[in-house]
Amino acid sequence: MLVASSSASAGALLRHVRTGRARSRAELVALTGASRNTVSARVDQLIAANLLAEGGRGWSTGGRPPTLLQFNSRAGCVLAVDLGVTSVDVAVTDLSAQVLATVGHSIDIADGPRPVLAEVDRLAQLVLADAGLEPADVCAVGVGVPGPVEHSSGRPFHPPIMPGWHDFPIPSAFGRYECPVYVDNDVNVMALGEMGAAGSVQDVLVVKVGTGIGCGVIVDGRVYRGAQGSAGDIGHIHVTTPDGRLVTCRCGQENCLEALAGGGALLTDAVAAGLPVRTTREVVERAAQGDGAAIELVREAGRTIGTVLAALVNFFNPHRIVVTGGVAQAGVPLLAGIRESVYRRSMPLAARALEITVSAAPELSGRIGAALMAIEGFLDEESVEQALAR
Amino acid sequence: MLVASSSASAGALLRHVRTGRARSRAELVALTGASRNTVSARVDQLIAANLLAEGGRGWSTGGRPPTLLQFNSRAGCVLAVDLGVTSVDVAVTDLSAQVLATVGHSIDIADGPRPVLAEVDRLAQLVLADAGLEPADVCAVGVGVPGPVEHSSGRPFHPPIMPGWHDFPIPSAFGRYECPVYVDNDVNVMALGEMGAAGSVQDVLVVKVGTGIGCGVIVDGRVYRGAQGSAGDIGHIHVTTPDGRLVTCRCGQENCLEALAGGGALLTDAVAAGLPVRTTREVVERAAQGDGAAIELVREAGRTIGTVLAALVNFFNPHRIVVTGGVAQAGVPLLAGIRESVYRRSMPLAARALEITVSAAPELSGRIGAALMAIEGFLDEESVEQALAR
Repeated sequence: MLVASSSASAGALLRHVRTGRARSRAELVALTGASRNTVSARVDQLIAANLLAEGGRGWSTGGRPPTLLQFNSRAGCVLAVDLGVTSVDVAVTDLSAQVLATVGHSIDIADGPRPVLAEVDRLAQLVLADAGLEPADVCAVGVGVPGPVEHSSGRPFHPPIMPGWHDFPIPSAFGRYECPVYVDNDVNVMALGEMGAAGSVQDVLVVKVGTGIGCGVIVDGRVYRGAQGSAGDIGHIHVTTPDGRLVTCRCGQENCLEALAGGGALLTDAVAAGLPVRTTREVVERAAQGDGAAIELVREAGRTIGTVLAALVNFFNPHRIVVTGGVAQAGVPLLAGIRESVYRRSMPLAARALEITVSAAPELSGRIGAALMAIEGFLDEESVEQALAR
Repeated sequence: MLVASSSASAGALLRHVRTGRARSRAELVALTGASRNTVSARVDQLIAANLLAEGGRGWSTGGRPPTLLQFNSRAGCVLAVDLGVTSVDVAVTDLSAQVLATVGHSIDIADGPRPVLAEVDRLAQLVLADAGLEPADVCAVGVGVPGPVEHSSGRPFHPPIMPGWHDFPIPSAFGRYECPVYVDNDVNVMALGEMGAAGSVQDVLVVKVGTGIGCGVIVDGRVYRGAQGSAGDIGHIHVTTPDGRLVTCRCGQENCLEALAGGGALLTDAVAAGLPVRTTREVVERAAQGDGAAIELVREAGRTIGTVLAALVNFFNPHRIVVTGGVAQAGVPLLAGIRESVYRRSMPLAARALEITVSAAPELSGRIGAALMAIEGFLDEESVEQALAR
């Protein structure tokens, strides 16, 4: 009889322990079908590399009680950078994406890559010092940016709201750390942050509602990118308004979703309605604090976003939709508007078990996502092989 | 140094030969990293099972010229059933989905599962006899049906246009063949037919325009199903018409895509325009033959379908869109209308390299797809292991 070969690389074994699927050598043997000797040799290498630790004994199922294995999430740290159009946040986390220190402030992305990344570099040194860590402790860097990125090279690709950043090699700004640097679009990064660490195999839409509107698309627990990497770019889907209103978008087209329901539109509408506000954040805060007029504006934006999501629910049939980004901090009114349109317009089979929620911490998902991207890159199966082979 | 384990099961080796990635034992060794002995033992088993054959010699790269391996696509056959609302087609194909014999005629799916499947059974015996094959030669059966199906059990799930079929175990109708029976939604099956055999890893939308409108969603070369298996159900996406026209859909909602641009709408509009037609097929034939009024009606349906596809192109960023189904037999006018809307409304990055084509043989893709589903099921890696272990 043939036995199908199974994946029992050191990286795969580490993943099983990290995600809680196995807690001992015996469980790794059972899970992978590899021989006891093979598993033990690779576990010993992972212990020598300080990535696994032995601790305590489990319950015996007959023989000697097994020694328990634990992932050593303090074996290193990663830098997580959340770069926005008007803000930057930098965090250092352990290898489980627990934030050890973080700092952030306002910037203008249009200042260009050199000054902005010099500031990121300064903030990174600050958080490392704050957490009592050295540059040599950094295993990987994750960066989310508000525009399209060629993931393999970490270079933005004609980003419409990042003038001067086209083709700039963002990883080069982190040369002092001598470690891999992963760069992706902020929406994909936030999607990772909302999905949490490996494990879930759901199909999820993570919708960011900020100045722009974008969507992280998760297929079977992984970021789906599409042919040119532009999947999830829902901000410029055309929307017909019930009253026939036409609004020109910054992209030149009329009635893009973002032009009707993004942060900018929300501010314009609030000012037109006579609210004493100067920023989108102030409109969102008013709605969160119960101001009736602000609530209705946010809810109407939600309804408009919901008409687009209703179509995507029919097409994509997701398990969940998570709403995040600056405007999501308004909470209930945004969600109520979105739900109203989605449940009215989607097919019953697709809508029946669909969960629509607001992120528990919209302001953190960019940093957590950037950390997870770096950790997954650092601990991916091939990288672990290479590290152990050195 | 650790070497990552690699997949060299008999099923995996067979797949490499079937898809042309390897043509000899040496190439299989190079491709899988398995030992020469392991590969040879498994290849011998596959030859004994009649799935591989040796034939001729390749070019030497130094030593003895290698013996070439070939997939024996005549090692068995599969039955392919394309069940529509008003027609059934049954084919028998070899293990490369080459049609050996086929037969089909009109039915009414609303007659219910027992009479319809009895007729399918009769047709299957006809095509087998026609091809000079025996029931024992049938390795697997593939069935496409015009409604949602629980893929694992082959039971339709509240199919709106298949009254009486809910929860009926379709595989039970093929008991005489003592082989696995695979059942899926016709749109997913057509998508397989358009993708061809294994190999491509593209992201593709296969849009069926018939009485209903549906979409097979291919992610990385595989059918994407979504949370409840209803992904691709685009026929009931809400569309706002430029002239504010309201049309009630059979689902009860207003202005579903299908109610505005499906085969039924095309016929209604053609009759209203004074064309002497009684069926959608007649409208399509007139358009294909150059009738100006019919062409404009088909093109307008294409424009409407294109407004929905434009949104999906932004969201999904596919490599390709293939249009199939009865109305697709109109060819150019449908394509022109779809392209007009998609290129006008999609983001340039997503639209730039996008190919939109009509199926080369819309009338065959259901049968080819059903055959491929059966073949892939029969030759999937686990099934091959089990067959050889017997």
